[in-house]
Amino acid sequence: MKDNKTLRIGLIGYGLMGRAHANAYKRVGDFFPELRYRPRLEAICGRNQSRVNAFAEQWGVESFETDWNALVARDDIDAIDICTPNDMHAEIALAAAAAGKMVLCEKPLARTVAEAQPMVEAVEKAGVKNTVWYNYRRVPAVTLAKQIVDSGKLGKIFHFRSNFLQDWTINPELPQGGEGLWRLDHQVAGSGVTGDLLAHCIDAAMWLNGGIKDVSAVTATFVKERTHQLTGDVQKVGIDDACIFHCHFDNGSLGLFEATRYARGHKALFTFEINGEHASIRWDLHDMTRLEYFDHDDQSVVRGWRSIHVSDSDQPYMDRWWIPGTSIGYEHTFVHQVADFLKSLETGEPCSPTFADALETQKVCEAVLRSSESKSWEDTGVTW
Amino acid sequence: MKDNKTLRIGLIGYGLMGRAHANAYKRVGDFFPELRYRPRLEAICGRNQSRVNAFAEQWGVESFETDWNALVARDDIDAIDICTPNDMHAEIALAAAAAGKMVLCEKPLARTVAEAQPMVEAVEKAGVKNTVWYNYRRVPAVTLAKQIVDSGKLGKIFHFRSNFLQDWTINPELPQGGEGLWRLDHQVAGSGVTGDLLAHCIDAAMWLNGGIKDVSAVTATFVKERTHQLTGDVQKVGIDDACIFHCHFDNGSLGLFEATRYARGHKALFTFEINGEHASIRWDLHDMTRLEYFDHDDQSVVRGWRSIHVSDSDQPYMDRWWIPGTSIGYEHTFVHQVADFLKSLETGEPCSPTFADALETQKVCEAVLRSSESKSWEDTGVTW
Amino acid sequence: MKDNKTLRIGLIGYGLMGRAHANAYKRVGDFFPELRYRPRLEAICGRNQSRVNAFAEQWGVESFETDWNALVARDDIDAIDICTPNDMHAEIALAAAAAGKMVLCEKPLARTVAEAQPMVEAVEKAGVKNTVWYNYRRVPAVTLAKQIVDSGKLGKIFHFRSNFLQDWTINPELPQGGEGLWRLDHQVAGSGVTGDLLAHCIDAAMWLNGGIKDVSAVTATFVKERTHQLTGDVQKVGIDDACIFHCHFDNGSLGLFEATRYARGHKALFTFEINGEHASIRWDLHDMTRLEYFDHDDQSVVRGWRSIHVSDSDQPYMDRWWIPGTSIGYEHTFVHQVADFLKSLETGEPCSPTFADALETQKVCEAVLRSSESKSWEDTGVTW
Amino acid sequence: MKDNKTLRIGLIGYGLMGRAHANAYKRVGDFFPELRYRPRLEAICGRNQSRVNAFAEQWGVESFETDWNALVARDDIDAIDICTPNDMHAEIALAAAAAGKMVLCEKPLARTVAEAQPMVEAVEKAGVKNTVWYNYRRVPAVTLAKQIVDSGKLGKIFHFRSNFLQDWTINPELPQGGEGLWRLDHQVAGSGVTGDLLAHCIDAAMWLNGGIKDVSAVTATFVKERTHQLTGDVQKVGIDDACIFHCHFDNGSLGLFEATRYARGHKALFTFEINGEHASIRWDLHDMTRLEYFDHDDQSVVRGWRSIHVSDSDQPYMDRWWIPGTSIGYEHTFVHQVADFLKSLETGEPCSPTFADALETQKVCEAVLRSSESKSWEDTGVTW
Repeated sequence: MKDNKTLRIGLIGYGLMGRAHANAYKRVGDFFPELRYRPRLEAICGRNQSRVNAFAEQWGVESFETDWNALVARDDIDAIDICTPNDMHAEIALAAAAAGKMVLCEKPLARTVAEAQPMVEAVEKAGVKNTVWYNYRRVPAVTLAKQIVDSGKLGKIFHFRSNFLQDWTINPELPQGGEGLWRLDHQVAGSGVTGDLLAHCIDAAMWLNGGIKDVSAVTATFVKERTHQLTGDVQKVGIDDACIFHCHFDNGSLGLFEATRYARGHKALFTFEINGEHASIRWDLHDMTRLEYFDHDDQSVVRGWRSIHVSDSDQPYMDRWWIPGTSIGYEHTFVHQVADFLKSLETGEPCSPTFADALETQKVCEAVLRSSESKSWEDTGVTW
Repeated sequence: MKDNKTLRIGLIGYGLMGRAHANAYKRVGDFFPELRYRPRLEAICGRNQSRVNAFAEQWGVESFETDWNALVARDDIDAIDICTPNDMHAEIALAAAAAGKMVLCEKPLARTVAEAQPMVEAVEKAGVKNTVWYNYRRVPAVTLAKQIVDSGKLGKIFHFRSNFLQDWTINPELPQGGEGLWRLDHQVAGSGVTGDLLAHCIDAAMWLNGGIKDVSAVTATFVKERTHQLTGDVQKVGIDDACIFHCHFDNGSLGLFEATRYARGHKALFTFEINGEHASIRWDLHDMTRLEYFDHDDQSVVRGWRSIHVSDSDQPYMDRWWIPGTSIGYEHTFVHQVADFLKSLETGEPCSPTFADALETQKVCEAVLRSSESKSWEDTGVTW
Repeated sequence: MKDNKTLRIGLIGYGLMGRAHANAYKRVGDFFPELRYRPRLEAICGRNQSRVNAFAEQWGVESFETDWNALVARDDIDAIDICTPNDMHAEIALAAAAAGKMVLCEKPLARTVAEAQPMVEAVEKAGVKNTVWYNYRRVPAVTLAKQIVDSGKLGKIFHFRSNFLQDWTINPELPQGGEGLWRLDHQVAGSGVTGDLLAHCIDAAMWLNGGIKDVSAVTATFVKERTHQLTGDVQKVGIDDACIFHCHFDNGSLGLFEATRYARGHKALFTFEINGEHASIRWDLHDMTRLEYFDHDDQSVVRGWRSIHVSDSDQPYMDRWWIPGTSIGYEHTFVHQVADFLKSLETGEPCSPTFADALETQKVCEAVLRSSESKSWEDTGVTW
Repeated sequence: MKDNKTLRIGLIGYGLMGRAHANAYKRVGDFFPELRYRPRLEAICGRNQSRVNAFAEQWGVESFETDWNALVARDDIDAIDICTPNDMHAEIALAAAAAGKMVLCEKPLARTVAEAQPMVEAVEKAGVKNTVWYNYRRVPAVTLAKQIVDSGKLGKIFHFRSNFLQDWTINPELPQGGEGLWRLDHQVAGSGVTGDLLAHCIDAAMWLNGGIKDVSAVTATFVKERTHQLTGDVQKVGIDDACIFHCHFDNGSLGLFEATRYARGHKALFTFEINGEHASIRWDLHDMTRLEYFDHDDQSVVRGWRSIHVSDSDQPYMDRWWIPGTSIGYEHTFVHQVADFLKSLETGEPCSPTFADALETQKVCEAVLRSSESKSWEDTGVTW
């Protein structure tokens, strides 16, 4: 590192996540001034020169690259942030670790466990800081849920359920693959809703409720063929359009998960609910500022689900922002993750979820897909 | 009374309220078996012979009358229940009291204070049991609100607000007056939304928060002329289509009230909210099973409005009905009022709201209308 | 039948369901006066003489029996209504059919398919009218959902999900078996949440979305031993405390179901949601007056889930009750089912769900329990 | 202006609003790259040198001033942004206009109409661009509400109601005046909730529904004395703790407004609702992403309030941000206002609300306070 203040970032990918991360790097210092490290977006990298150039201009990034190998090779870069489609995660991460760079990787860690395992080994062997952007952990209401769980308030847990419902691929005329649509291309994405959406649910689930032991799943591909955007060919759809599974957690609770892109009326309805002996919690992304909380210890006649507007300064992260009653949004989850990453550089602690954590989520995803194939229960092999 | 078990009811009016009361009399014994008195709907009275006869047949009422004077004169009637349009309340009540009958009167007590005052004097002089059907007091969630208020939990009260929003008279082609539409006829109804809707808000307000001292009001009549259904003539509309007022309560809190029949999208949105130093409560009729409750004493990070599903057996009236999580409805408020009335016959206590209580509500209604005319604050003269 | 007007009912069981049915028989005539048949609760039957007598007095039933065989043998009874615990359904139904009585049976039809199959054969062979009380079909909002589905508005269906969440058995000190607790006794109930709660979800699902082809399930019994209320012995708990399954419907959609009595904060949260190509619907019992509806054909910038307050006279059953904006409750679903049953006597049509319909639901329940044992997918054998 | 690209801002005040504006200036370019002008926060000004210096460091502002006169005098400043307490608005604005600077002023424009009037004259005489930060107009859901109103979809308007409820001053131990508490000091703030909260409601109201003609108001000061933070003296509280008014709009509709800081349970519940002949709209700040919309033209049986999640790219401002289903927050309203201000520099159009617009809001505030004193209706003198 050039000095003990600036963390020089090389960002690969200028899509939605590239923008979200760029924004986070630029803003974190204004709101977390106590951090010793300040990130600087040193270079942006993408294959299309005119577009990467445009991104650099718009976002005020001083240099750009069109070959990620060149970026990884640069001396003036401390950390590589991988926002590419899933099929590039492993190769880049391995190279970055080998070059001694810190690695921040978009989720899911990889397309498969087989790809992800060496990534974990690489960062651990290289001893480089690493994290995976399961950003929803840093929604203040979700972090508050974690604090409530950790307080022991819920008692023994019986149920965890989570879903992630979208409706953007119902139209069969929507092509698969190519610009903005790589998530529909099995070769690039590795899977459909399982890696894209369920991975978020699973990360939250294991963070909040511990390891998932075994799973029984079903998937569906409702639209069987789509035109590939790049080739123009009509091809078989290889991804899962929808995926449902139930499972056992290590703590004895039952889990229930569902993701789909065919739930008309839901844009990005990521929800979870935990039912414990003494209390329950639920949250959904569409109303992300609120946490629902039921406390059985409340006096019985006035007992009810509380709708907590998580916007006070004694609630997670909210001392950094505005005033009670006002909301922050989706992008702030990335700012918080950057802040926590920077903090971890000071403390020497890992910044969760690490590559190792994300590998466990990958194992569940893979067991889910395996179960949907085998039509039987599959052990996940997770150690949480 | 013929014997010490049966309360023989003579019901005047077979409209919506006639049906609601008839239903209540028939059902109360099945759910409140411990009551010493059981009501029997002995006779139904209405001007239109074929319709009153049909009502008697449908509801299994043994006799009917077309002249209310004849009903009041009958020896086999213990109590007169007045469900007529407002312009008949006073005359009938005076006669019933004079005949020594108990009197149950639909709200509002009368069209004016001048009409209502002698009614109170009459029942008090005659020493007959009396009550006015401000039925919403007996919604379990509303009764629970009253219990919370009475517990002192709220501390000093700062605000009370209530509204009653409907949208059924927006169409200017709707006639005024006549069958099913007497509420639009100023001569019959006495006022528009003030007596019809605000009266409910005011009754709840004073029951929950004490006397209203003075008011400042505005009314509007959006549709200026309507055809009278009976005469076919286009006439000036005399009623208030909408009414808003603010006020001071005796306890120093501010009140805010609104009623209208021109709030597109609201069928019968009767709501109230009380803000106290330590806690707040709100309720609305559209979701009548729920009471919202905010308790500032909850731990700050998990504080939020509780949505209480008032359906447990330890909540008001709910030990009589079904199982937790299931709802009762609008009609049960009338059953509860009958039960409480019957209970009051045993205890000798008044069954609130009495005529005297309802007179106070009438005073507020009248002050509201007076203020809307005078365009200034008006004292209500209420003693609560 | 004594005459062509009165349907003489013999009701077996005076618990929650006995009360709900008694209430329905007494009220239906007041609100459905056009029906040619009027039910009369001729006799109530229960094993405990003092309690059955008390019930008869409270509800005004003229006679009672303590032996159901005696009831079935009576000439003055046209229809037998079975509200006993599950283990008695089959025996009584067979006897009633053999005696030529109509049979109305509480759900689930029986403990097992093996018990249920002969019941169907018996009523069909005897040619007697029959119905099973899956009462939630007659919630106005649920009936409206059915009408929307039948209109074809939803287009191709992708997802159906439903759950029924309760929290009343979390306390491990709660005994199993005996008065009020037979639902926890495997011998009497046949199963736990599967037959008690999921059966409702499955009935609604197949009514709304067609046959369920195959299922993959998991169950859990969280409290392993409980004291039996009658014997005082600590015994192994035989029922399923929670059950989750996913499935394929005949129409190609995926189904997801969950029921539990360990979801802290939920009293009786029965919900369902259907996601179609063009529109989606969801409903829950806690706010049973509302139906949520999303119509993708709405103009995009003002598109959103509509919260329909099902209380207008053009909505199912609501022309019989009160005024827009006011609610009816749980008990009205039984009144509606009686009304539809009486109507079916006039038309000669079956009153759904019939025993034959309920047998299909039983098949799904059984396949679910079988799958939870086998840990693999099981075909249901349903023909819907 | 130094060149035709950079707008050099001098920001006065480093409190909550100073931060919100600084953030907006820094971010707007990243999300609105097409704008010809890019703001640069050239200097920050505040009385406390160590704090203004700290702000400059935290936010990366290159220079700072402790005397606003010095800032206004600087040649390298194009626009003055006033984020001071209310009592400084007028003096600074007059000086800035006199110096030929553009002026952006926090709301309310001033403490009184007498202060505000010369401000309008000054900017108009100087011909300098000006705007007032009624930021809630630029909540996407609120802007969408405006578009719906402008489309004529609502038809004739009958009702507009709005409130702004907070609960942060209930504690009588809270001091008045001084750091962070100047809003409680009448001398500095000019008024209590009227200028602070109702001003937002009134701005939204007139923007959405046209001019307010006359008002009838009541205010209350619940805590009569507080310690002044700076002097330590117990002083009479001069501000209004709560304010309610009703009014007539020029279009014939009735208005109802309430603001308070004593509504336990509400952090910043700014809401409005418009009821029109054909449709209604409502919104609240606590769930700011959603707009509720009722369209009477929907088919009657499936009619209901729609909950629109305003997060799609065809909804106002949302093409600039993330993906459907994800939210932006409070701070984005300021970014949007900066973007619109910069755009107005290109087009030459005013950036609403201008000083002239805000003066009209001031007139209503003043009429409200006058009415509360006079206890009678007061004309506003507004020309909208």
